[in-house]
Amino acid sequence: MSLLVTGTVAIDSVKTPFGEQPDCLGGSATYFSVAASHFTDVRLVGAVGDDFPTDYLKIFDGRDIDTEGLEIRPGSKTFRWSGCYEGAMNEANTLETQLNILTEAPPTIPVAFRDSKFVFLANTAPEVQMHLLGLLDGPELVVADTMNFWIENTRLDLIKLIGAINALVLNDTEARMFTGKSNLIDAACDIVEMGLDFVVIKKGEHGTMLLTKDDECFVLPGYPTDAVKDPTGAGDSFAGGMMGYLADKGKVDFATLKQAIAYGTCTASLVIEDFSLDRWQSAGRADIEKRLNQLREMIQF
Amino acid sequence: MSLLVTGTVAIDSVKTPFGEQPDCLGGSATYFSVAASHFTDVRLVGAVGDDFPTDYLKIFDGRDIDTEGLEIRPGSKTFRWSGCYEGAMNEANTLETQLNILTEAPPTIPVAFRDSKFVFLANTAPEVQMHLLGLLDGPELVVADTMNFWIENTRLDLIKLIGAINALVLNDTEARMFTGKSNLIDAACDIVEMGLDFVVIKKGEHGTMLLTKDDECFVLPGYPTDAVKDPTGAGDSFAGGMMGYLADKGKVDFATLKQAIAYGTCTASLVIEDFSLDRWQSAGRADIEKRLNQLREMIQF
Repeated sequence: MSLLVTGTVAIDSVKTPFGEQPDCLGGSATYFSVAASHFTDVRLVGAVGDDFPTDYLKIFDGRDIDTEGLEIRPGSKTFRWSGCYEGAMNEANTLETQLNILTEAPPTIPVAFRDSKFVFLANTAPEVQMHLLGLLDGPELVVADTMNFWIENTRLDLIKLIGAINALVLNDTEARMFTGKSNLIDAACDIVEMGLDFVVIKKGEHGTMLLTKDDECFVLPGYPTDAVKDPTGAGDSFAGGMMGYLADKGKVDFATLKQAIAYGTCTASLVIEDFSLDRWQSAGRADIEKRLNQLREMIQF
Repeated sequence: MSLLVTGTVAIDSVKTPFGEQPDCLGGSATYFSVAASHFTDVRLVGAVGDDFPTDYLKIFDGRDIDTEGLEIRPGSKTFRWSGCYEGAMNEANTLETQLNILTEAPPTIPVAFRDSKFVFLANTAPEVQMHLLGLLDGPELVVADTMNFWIENTRLDLIKLIGAINALVLNDTEARMFTGKSNLIDAACDIVEMGLDFVVIKKGEHGTMLLTKDDECFVLPGYPTDAVKDPTGAGDSFAGGMMGYLADKGKVDFATLKQAIAYGTCTASLVIEDFSLDRWQSAGRADIEKRLNQLREMIQF
């Protein structure tokens, strides 16, 4: 099935205990689409300014990623994020955010993309996510990401969005903040009851929890890697792996969803082993499959 | 196989978002032995003062717990701990510690207990753990618990202890502090290389990681319960379930160890659903088995 992602294509500057990478390729739609392209073909919707290095577009070459929806807007400046990670690197400390093009009109969705059946609305203002969703022609599965800023500042918009989509992915801190529930299962229940088919709560190195509207629960540890260099993009790569697998299978039953989350987990575990998207220079679907089998083996008792 | 535990029998005062319980039964050896008694018979070694409410001893009645090693020392005062939990309750804030009897001579191990083959040295000064270990006659498996205080203040004693035992259980923060490694797999490797057969790293609600000297790795999420009331004793109950199962099976191969950790996980998930050890008034082995099956089902993909 066709998979569409709307999100950012960005220029990041990242510092971790393992080094520093100024002005590297980043953005939610970038991480998502490269991750998802290991499973299915991807339609990318985003916008960059004319300051965006054309070299960076090469990441999409040779992959099943249709960039017709990637607008290069003259006179605009690309979204930039700068952050650092310390210690266990579980949380990014944002040093600077230059919204730039994100303060302008959102990108449009090409007519040829509007029949997309599987859709991922990467993190942005819920109002913008709602607008983009409105441009689509009967998608079958719409999953959105969000973050603390929108939970705190545009709560009602987010709740409205939830009523119009199938699922939300967010991290454990955000789930607790959103619901005011300290217990994560309680929080997940509350979010599903807002009108979702399912919620996926990401816990960084600690893995993932899935809860469905039928009270089906799936818990999975993270894939244990000792080679973490830069966690940037882990969440979007997880979502890319998950949605890519779902779109490829063309179904969203509980069994497929669990598989998809395991694929997302293993996909994300690779990208964090190098800065930016550099890990995909050497890693591919075979590495994801290998880790999936290892992970399955590592949780058996 | 015979299972011995050395640790504290204490009076706790606990406050959580779900209520307050002053002067309730606590202590590492208490939580451990009741948890382990669901699997095997337990020999308890500890000491309390003559202020200890005799009513509290009833917890051991009707269970396979031999309290010959529980010394009631005239003129001494029982160890007291007071703490509170907030929000997600992942960490206890200690309000007050009255060491009392813990500053005196450690309890002795009854002659009849000295042939114990499976031994758990609950958290205390590594020097005391070493002393108690020295009283035993050829144990087959010795596992110790520790905490940040000993890692920071008696590091060399702890390293010496590690050279004399088979395994250590500790939490993720402590593992990182002990090794200076932010990556948890790195930290686990370093600890095993100090001379252990295996290390078990507890991550609270996020579950457990096991690493063996043969580089075998097992990761397991916590059992997801939405009924957490008081996390006190979770770690010792985990260890009790784990060691109880191992002692019952009488072996410590990787497959048995993984099963044991799953049993420990489910045992701990019960005790935290009420204050003190109250949950064991209604819960028993059947509940642990039920959760084990649910957990196995919940991680399948």
